[in-house]
Amino acid sequence: MPNQHTMQAFDKELRDVNALVLQMAENVLSQLSLAIESVASLDAEDALKVIEQDQQIDQLEWEVENQVIRILALREPKADDLRRVVSIMKTATDLERMGDLSANISKRALALVQNPPGSGISALNMMVKSVQAMVKTVMTAFQENDSAMAMSVWRQDLEVDELFNSVFREYLTYMMENPRNISPYTHLLFIAKNVERIGDHVTNIAENVYYIIEGKQMHGKRPKGDLTSSTVVV
Amino acid sequence: MPNQHTMQAFDKELRDVNALVLQMAENVLSQLSLAIESVASLDAEDALKVIEQDQQIDQLEWEVENQVIRILALREPKADDLRRVVSIMKTATDLERMGDLSANISKRALALVQNPPGSGISALNMMVKSVQAMVKTVMTAFQENDSAMAMSVWRQDLEVDELFNSVFREYLTYMMENPRNISPYTHLLFIAKNVERIGDHVTNIAENVYYIIEGKQMHGKRPKGDLTSSTVVV
Repeated sequence: MPNQHTMQAFDKELRDVNALVLQMAENVLSQLSLAIESVASLDAEDALKVIEQDQQIDQLEWEVENQVIRILALREPKADDLRRVVSIMKTATDLERMGDLSANISKRALALVQNPPGSGISALNMMVKSVQAMVKTVMTAFQENDSAMAMSVWRQDLEVDELFNSVFREYLTYMMENPRNISPYTHLLFIAKNVERIGDHVTNIAENVYYIIEGKQMHGKRPKGDLTSSTVVV
Repeated sequence: MPNQHTMQAFDKELRDVNALVLQMAENVLSQLSLAIESVASLDAEDALKVIEQDQQIDQLEWEVENQVIRILALREPKADDLRRVVSIMKTATDLERMGDLSANISKRALALVQNPPGSGISALNMMVKSVQAMVKTVMTAFQENDSAMAMSVWRQDLEVDELFNSVFREYLTYMMENPRNISPYTHLLFIAKNVERIGDHVTNIAENVYYIIEGKQMHGKRPKGDLTSSTVVV
């Protein structure tokens, strides 16, 4: 980027694409809320709304990618600037997946409408609240250039994983109590897994945001707390 | 890219990064095979090997990303070339996730060693064979610049989704027959879901490969055959 003018144009374009990413994050948050509401209140109308609105997030990701490619072509950023631009695109990819997972939660809500579970929603709600807090934290970190805040999301994800461990065990016990529970609680297990994966995507974003701010990798291995892959309940 | 020399350097660098991507795909294929073998034969040693080797794929993704960033910085590709380079990086991201999913299958194999399922592995094996064929097809398409072959992967994914639908129902029936089956078949359900998601990642790759070859988007909406999100078994 040779001159003052190009640098100003680059900064403006970066702000514009950041605004799109923040818009994506807001859409994801409201989609996730509505998806979980559709599960809790067995509301098919809300569920269908989430499924329908998912394409707005897909569209925003497409715009982010196009703007990033435009910036790469026109501004030819180098070194840290280049990695920052690439990290913004990767953040949009994670947000798009979080939208897909919210839509999948709503698809399962539609199955639950036909075959409702008894209880077990409150623990799931706690998971969702934790994940929503993570999304807000990482996006504030992104907006305010606060890399320490981005790092704190890593630790929050451990909490989500621990909640998932107890939800997982709780649902298995309902399934063991009564075979009629197997079908609805299988969907709830996958719903909880989707929420846990949304948490994983937020930690990916935290790593990207850290990079965007600091120009270097977060060090250390991400703490993993999801033990459900090795859970044996007999 | 101003001159002949730069264009030759760009072509060579592109070939080098393509070779890394093909290496990633080969690692993913062997990891998936070993993961499923560890499930079928309840072999903890194989399972641990898959988990340990996953970092090789992570490392390769890191190398692809670094080489792509180097190409962007040095060669400043434009238009189709630029999109091609970005698509190569996205392909590596999908392959890395496929490695993660294979490692997760092996984690669950370790749980199954302690609490083995009765039957239901043969249907899972069929899913895996289909997904492995998809990976091979998409990588041949990538190597031989065959966009029609890349598109055929979309259709193959429908077959995987259909196999997943029947596996899903089969496992639910085992769970309903005997509460002792609930814990192992929950792991098998998640294993089958992981295989189905590996198939989804292959279709993402097919879209990227199509782009790399044709310089334009695959048109039409991807056919989706996974109905398990809305399956109700009473």
